[in-house]
Amino acid sequence: MSNDKKVERITDMEKDFAQWFTDVCIQAELVDYSGIKGFFIMRPYGYAIWENIQNVLDKKFKEGGHENVSMPVLIPESLLQKEKDHVEGFAPECAWVTHGGDEELPERLCVRPTSETLFCDHWSHVLHSWRDLPMLYNQWCSVLRWEKTTRPFLRGREFLWQEGHTLHATEEEAREETLKQLDVYADLCENYLAMPVIKGNKTDKEKFAGAVNTYTIECMMHDKKALQSGTSHFFGDGFARQFDITFTDRDNKQKYPFQTSWGLSTRVIGGIIMTHGDNNGLVLPPKIAPVQVIVVPVAQHKEGVLEKAQALYEELKALGIRAKIDTSDNSLGWKCAQYEMKGVPLRVEIGPKDIENGSCMAVRRDNREKTSVSLSELETEIPRLLDAVQKGLYDKAKNNLDKNIRPAYSLEEAKELQENYGGFVKTMWCGDLKCELDMKEKAGMSSRCIPFKQENLGETCACCGKKAKHMIYWGVAY
Amino acid sequence: MSNDKKVERITDMEKDFAQWFTDVCIQAELVDYSGIKGFFIMRPYGYAIWENIQNVLDKKFKEGGHENVSMPVLIPESLLQKEKDHVEGFAPECAWVTHGGDEELPERLCVRPTSETLFCDHWSHVLHSWRDLPMLYNQWCSVLRWEKTTRPFLRGREFLWQEGHTLHATEEEAREETLKQLDVYADLCENYLAMPVIKGNKTDKEKFAGAVNTYTIECMMHDKKALQSGTSHFFGDGFARQFDITFTDRDNKQKYPFQTSWGLSTRVIGGIIMTHGDNNGLVLPPKIAPVQVIVVPVAQHKEGVLEKAQALYEELKALGIRAKIDTSDNSLGWKCAQYEMKGVPLRVEIGPKDIENGSCMAVRRDNREKTSVSLSELETEIPRLLDAVQKGLYDKAKNNLDKNIRPAYSLEEAKELQENYGGFVKTMWCGDLKCELDMKEKAGMSSRCIPFKQENLGETCACCGKKAKHMIYWGVAY
Repeated sequence: MSNDKKVERITDMEKDFAQWFTDVCIQAELVDYSGIKGFFIMRPYGYAIWENIQNVLDKKFKEGGHENVSMPVLIPESLLQKEKDHVEGFAPECAWVTHGGDEELPERLCVRPTSETLFCDHWSHVLHSWRDLPMLYNQWCSVLRWEKTTRPFLRGREFLWQEGHTLHATEEEAREETLKQLDVYADLCENYLAMPVIKGNKTDKEKFAGAVNTYTIECMMHDKKALQSGTSHFFGDGFARQFDITFTDRDNKQKYPFQTSWGLSTRVIGGIIMTHGDNNGLVLPPKIAPVQVIVVPVAQHKEGVLEKAQALYEELKALGIRAKIDTSDNSLGWKCAQYEMKGVPLRVEIGPKDIENGSCMAVRRDNREKTSVSLSELETEIPRLLDAVQKGLYDKAKNNLDKNIRPAYSLEEAKELQENYGGFVKTMWCGDLKCELDMKEKAGMSSRCIPFKQENLGETCACCGKKAKHMIYWGVAY
Repeated sequence: MSNDKKVERITDMEKDFAQWFTDVCIQAELVDYSGIKGFFIMRPYGYAIWENIQNVLDKKFKEGGHENVSMPVLIPESLLQKEKDHVEGFAPECAWVTHGGDEELPERLCVRPTSETLFCDHWSHVLHSWRDLPMLYNQWCSVLRWEKTTRPFLRGREFLWQEGHTLHATEEEAREETLKQLDVYADLCENYLAMPVIKGNKTDKEKFAGAVNTYTIECMMHDKKALQSGTSHFFGDGFARQFDITFTDRDNKQKYPFQTSWGLSTRVIGGIIMTHGDNNGLVLPPKIAPVQVIVVPVAQHKEGVLEKAQALYEELKALGIRAKIDTSDNSLGWKCAQYEMKGVPLRVEIGPKDIENGSCMAVRRDNREKTSVSLSELETEIPRLLDAVQKGLYDKAKNNLDKNIRPAYSLEEAKELQENYGGFVKTMWCGDLKCELDMKEKAGMSSRCIPFKQENLGETCACCGKKAKHMIYWGVAY
């Protein structure tokens, strides 16, 4: 039975980047739209990417002594209101449950937009002594934020994430934790997702509602826009005071503990798409690809081809490689296009000629480079090629980032650079909100971060000319 | 610094089983109450049990070809209403979101009580050809059911579960899947949780809203009440017809696929507690215990004890055993009581005398049996003891189940057996709802299941005397 299925063409990214992105999400079978605006279905292929990210992070969290917990999905309105800045930040985006069964509830319950208030309420019950500290918790869940504009992965009314919440006896220890977890995110992005990051401080304007400090990792997408890919917050003892969380310290005194939280969401999958994808679809870094190698038999009707292809597939699996084989009746052309669309890092073709030569043909997804691989050398050659794809993707993204950060010495110059080149603009900054708002209004850029790696571009703020405090990155962000 | 912390006594189970259960949940640090009735916080120790159960099941699901997905947490009211029986079963228990941010929503959205309608809606978009079948999906998530009476694990307004949802080209294949997944649950319960099960059919009265058949595994708790521990449903093509899910079959005809779903929840943790626990607290089967062995130094202030204890702990970890060591300044008595409360299967004590003898003392949680283990034989002896605890728990539970199933030949006899002994009563049954309601009203027992393993206890229904169709189990259930 023949099958004339076609892989649908997607929009060229140069023509319409936003449409290209949506096309990839749908055609690579990552998501489906649900019946409610801003709520997306993560299909098996998309969810498997998230599971691979979860596996990496969960292992790192646990190695760092963190434990997973599960908090309620609903928060009473009165609990959300306990911390003033926090409720101001989140209340406008809450979805409210008002009825349970047939009854109207005495108090509105909000579907969690984030769980600080729940963790604090719990801690106020269970924390007693310095012996109970630190409390290093994490939760894998979904959260709701009632956004106006929504897009798969990048901005949903519901999204999946992990939220770490920790409590410490001292400020120093809490600050250390905040930075340590930012490093966990940076390691995930750089070494697994092949996405180079810039680590830094958020400005007061951009920090998390209720935080003392928010640290961020910022990535640059293929269209040179910024994606905030993970954040880590230091709260001081502000929430602890509001929620009356105390402990008896070694010196027998009652004290308030210091708190952190940190989150990374399915948004990074949007980052993977926009960092590595091309006009043939998704391109996945091998380390988190659900399928690392797709085996495609060539002229599979010919004697012995299917058997050899199957043996090759079994061998790859035995090597611990996430391999799949496609022996369906779809055409070779369809298969090649389909697995390119799905971003499988390596396609291995095997046909009568290859079998004669005792080899197979490996085709890299990232640059379509073909390598004939001897069947006796699979064990070394396939992992080598996967590593080459991983490194190739990182290097290309790093190059895109490095060449698209430009210094500016005035607001006008910053604006011009953004208009002509996009990317990030770095300037000196006085630290005042007014200059930050000016840059947004006049050059269309928000502050991305005050990078940990500071450079001295001069002594004065590029916006107002007053004495500069920091070097800062500006950009147009998702 | 000394620490006079006490492990609080719990209520004896013989005195008040319900209070004993709650005490264990709190004192073993499995859960905490949240600010909303029926919403429980799963603390690290409780959640770690769930993670171990997840690991077992997720592996089995994936080996069976299932893939994980993520569906929205909210369901539009109109979508829930598409299948008549289904909405009747669930609408009275729904929590309703009516506002997003400041706006009243045009349609109420229900926080999912189960996701059949969401899967069906999705399938109606993505199913085209017989090539797309079967679709074997699973989701790990929480669901909400607005119950009146709530208890940790057993009945929450929110609980964690997995829900499998599959679609098949033929009825035969779907029916096979339904039973296969029931076997996965039975295997989990019997071989990991040490909970013997009875597999069978639910009656029409007790089946899932919208299902053609519901299969169940029923367990018996220590108080001889029943706990329905997992269910698997065959839907026929009913939902497919309501949601207009069709595919082009090999013969080029449009057909409706056949559907299943199956779920197992954190309720089984309640089952573990009530099957194995005792008056000293929780007792965990080693295969899913977060901590399998707790190492406790005896007279740890004496020279060399802490070092030896630490070396012992490191060795156990290297053997792949989930071990922990408690070197805190709490008293030995507190430590013993605390890890008994938490149900750690094996406590290993090591003090000066043991060190002299080149041994340690292993104490089983289930029967407090002490075994001196040579330090040179840890590799064989500790796993052997863990296996012995696992088997001991299963055998004890199996004995409790077997000796508490009694045949009855009239409703009066059934009632008397229930009142005098509790447990399950087995009778012949005509299959009529009226007799099922009679048994409930007069003997206080609901039908547990029509077991796959039928016995012939006679020709007539124990309730009405008409011709019998099946043997059935009755019991008082959680």
